Amino acid sequence: MRTRAAVAMEAGKPLEVMEVNLEGPKAGEVMVEIKATGICHTDDFTRSGADPEGLFPAILGHEGAGVVVEVGPGVTSVKVGDHVIPLYTPECRQCASCLSGKTNLCTAIRNTQGQGLMPDGTSRFSMLDGTPIHHYMGCSTFSNYTVLPEIAVAKVREDAPFDKICYIGCGVTTGIGAVINTAKVEIGAKAVVFGLGGIGLNVLQGLRLAGADMIIGVDLNDDKKPMAEHFGMTHFINPKNTENVVQEIINLTKTPFDQIGGADYSFDCTGNVNVMRQALECTHRGWGQSIVIGVAPAGAEISTRPFQLVTGRVWKGSAFGGARGRTDVPKIVDWYMDGKIEIDPMITHLLTLDDINKGFDLMHSGESIRSVVLY
Amino acid sequence: MRTRAAVAMEAGKPLEVMEVNLEGPKAGEVMVEIKATGICHTDDFTRSGADPEGLFPAILGHEGAGVVVEVGPGVTSVKVGDHVIPLYTPECRQCASCLSGKTNLCTAIRNTQGQGLMPDGTSRFSMLDGTPIHHYMGCSTFSNYTVLPEIAVAKVREDAPFDKICYIGCGVTTGIGAVINTAKVEIGAKAVVFGLGGIGLNVLQGLRLAGADMIIGVDLNDDKKPMAEHFGMTHFINPKNTENVVQEIINLTKTPFDQIGGADYSFDCTGNVNVMRQALECTHRGWGQSIVIGVAPAGAEISTRPFQLVTGRVWKGSAFGGARGRTDVPKIVDWYMDGKIEIDPMITHLLTLDDINKGFDLMHSGESIRSVVLY
Ligand SMILES: [Zn+2]
Ligand SMILES: [Zn+2]
Ligand SMILES: [Zn+2]
Ligand SMILES: [Zn+2]
Repeated sequence: MRTRAAVAMEAGKPLEVMEVNLEGPKAGEVMVEIKATGICHTDDFTRSGADPEGLFPAILGHEGAGVVVEVGPGVTSVKVGDHVIPLYTPECRQCASCLSGKTNLCTAIRNTQGQGLMPDGTSRFSMLDGTPIHHYMGCSTFSNYTVLPEIAVAKVREDAPFDKICYIGCGVTTGIGAVINTAKVEIGAKAVVFGLGGIGLNVLQGLRLAGADMIIGVDLNDDKKPMAEHFGMTHFINPKNTENVVQEIINLTKTPFDQIGGADYSFDCTGNVNVMRQALECTHRGWGQSIVIGVAPAGAEISTRPFQLVTGRVWKGSAFGGARGRTDVPKIVDWYMDGKIEIDPMITHLLTLDDINKGFDLMHSGESIRSVVLY
Repeated sequence: MRTRAAVAMEAGKPLEVMEVNLEGPKAGEVMVEIKATGICHTDDFTRSGADPEGLFPAILGHEGAGVVVEVGPGVTSVKVGDHVIPLYTPECRQCASCLSGKTNLCTAIRNTQGQGLMPDGTSRFSMLDGTPIHHYMGCSTFSNYTVLPEIAVAKVREDAPFDKICYIGCGVTTGIGAVINTAKVEIGAKAVVFGLGGIGLNVLQGLRLAGADMIIGVDLNDDKKPMAEHFGMTHFINPKNTENVVQEIINLTKTPFDQIGGADYSFDCTGNVNVMRQALECTHRGWGQSIVIGVAPAGAEISTRPFQLVTGRVWKGSAFGGARGRTDVPKIVDWYMDGKIEIDPMITHLLTLDDINKGFDLMHSGESIRSVVLY
């Protein structure tokens, strides 16, 4: 069949909206009609050419929601008509990683996904002239119709609006999951969030959901403050207004009883390795945990004195919020529908597929939190 | 009163054995007759002048065992005649750190201890001419008699031999505790230990105690192999014989079911920041934990790509094995007396106080695992 898609033809160029060929689902695969997709920094990282593992031509997009329209042989976990969220981190429930109970980083289809291919080593997408087009993060939600492995879709309730829950396919789960699954923040904790973009806002609301007492936001842009407060931030620090962010956080978290000070948990949502170091070093001696969420530029390295670790700080990272997609994503959709978490204020712009490149412009100018393409 | 002690008069010089003055215990303090003390790399780090926080003159030594001979006003937790192990990490049970339940790094007397003083800001030791001598790590076990805060002694059973359990005051607890308290290694785990000196051997026996399946030792010296095997090592890697230690560990830990590979836990006992990086990167994607135990040279930094953390590895450190001294040290003495752990083969040399400098020579030549001074 044919479908409309925004294709990244080469690094650094705008996406081109065109008709492409899409083969039907093979064994263990499903075809999904994408109803809405967010535009994420990771898409732009690859589109721009900054991603050393980027492949072209490709259909980007990994933050979608839609409806199953066809299933391949052997598919048992979803059926035509099911509402689903595509998962760039699949959950096979059978590999060593899934069965470890210690990680969400399923490895069942990692190699082919990294090559922009379906698990059988081929692509379902091609140009009208027959040139194959790469899949992207196993999702390719910038196509109106896409094919995914069965293990890479989360079945969700049917009353949830596509243009909001698509964001659960990446940013919402990444931020909230880092708090709940990776850091396991407890009631009463003091936490710091570096970077108050979309991921940062979701970390904030994750902290509020987890019952944190003090939720400090750090951002170079004062304009981020009102929205951050809406999502739970209790204190704001602009590094431009302080000599030493680390010391300011330590001072802010001291109490008459605890004169050591430091955050119980910190989260880096900036991708800046210098900020990652500050995020570690502002945590509390003895038990502070710092969670790296942001994606650093290729080749960048984090550093610290090992004394920071020996005196009890823990350095961790989080991918897709430590969430097992098929198991946890439907729960997060429920939380949204139950009003436990908010998404609506973060979806700042709705676009058509033809206007998808405007979404990248809005991202670059800082005008949007999240732009969503409605098919 | 007067006591014999080995005094570090200045950085880089041998210790000088002499008579010194010792004031009796003040409120909340106890005087201990040290019966035996180990000689640790940390003593040598300070003696040599490499420790930027080293103070002189000082009475070094922090790995002792002895008997309480006098108690100051208000002391309730120990009495004259009790057998005790001095604690360089005290346990006040009242500070924010002790009460957090998340760390052993009691902060009750941290500031004065770092200044080489008792909690009231003065020293109990002085030269015969009246010049004050600094305490060291709150212990100063290179003196036949020493004074310590009550919160810095662990009461232990009286049938345990001083010349063995003194080692529980540092190396044994540091190594075993890193496995049990910091990493919380589970039965069946695969672990790697970098550096097979005294601490490394204790990590090995901690792993055996914890039921680890695969216990890989890494050391540049093949001669370490027999003793390491005695303490539980199942596989040995000499980095001189391999191009890539990290890859070799990953290959060694792969199974037909798990083709990712990597250690579940790794421990750095070298203090070398390059090795610390290898220790992190050889752990398993998704859940590997690396524990820094070794003390790095002043100013040295650890580095890695944040991707290592984002893909699920955790970087931690351990001080005094995460052990709460007064609570956990008596248990480790019991484990020794019950034969659950071994210490005897690690005590390779017994010395008199007059010969204490030979202990540093034996350490430098690599002949000793642990030299112990018997008073
Ligand atoms: Zn994303
Ligand atoms: Zn899996
Ligand atoms: Zn020591
Ligand atoms: Zn304390």
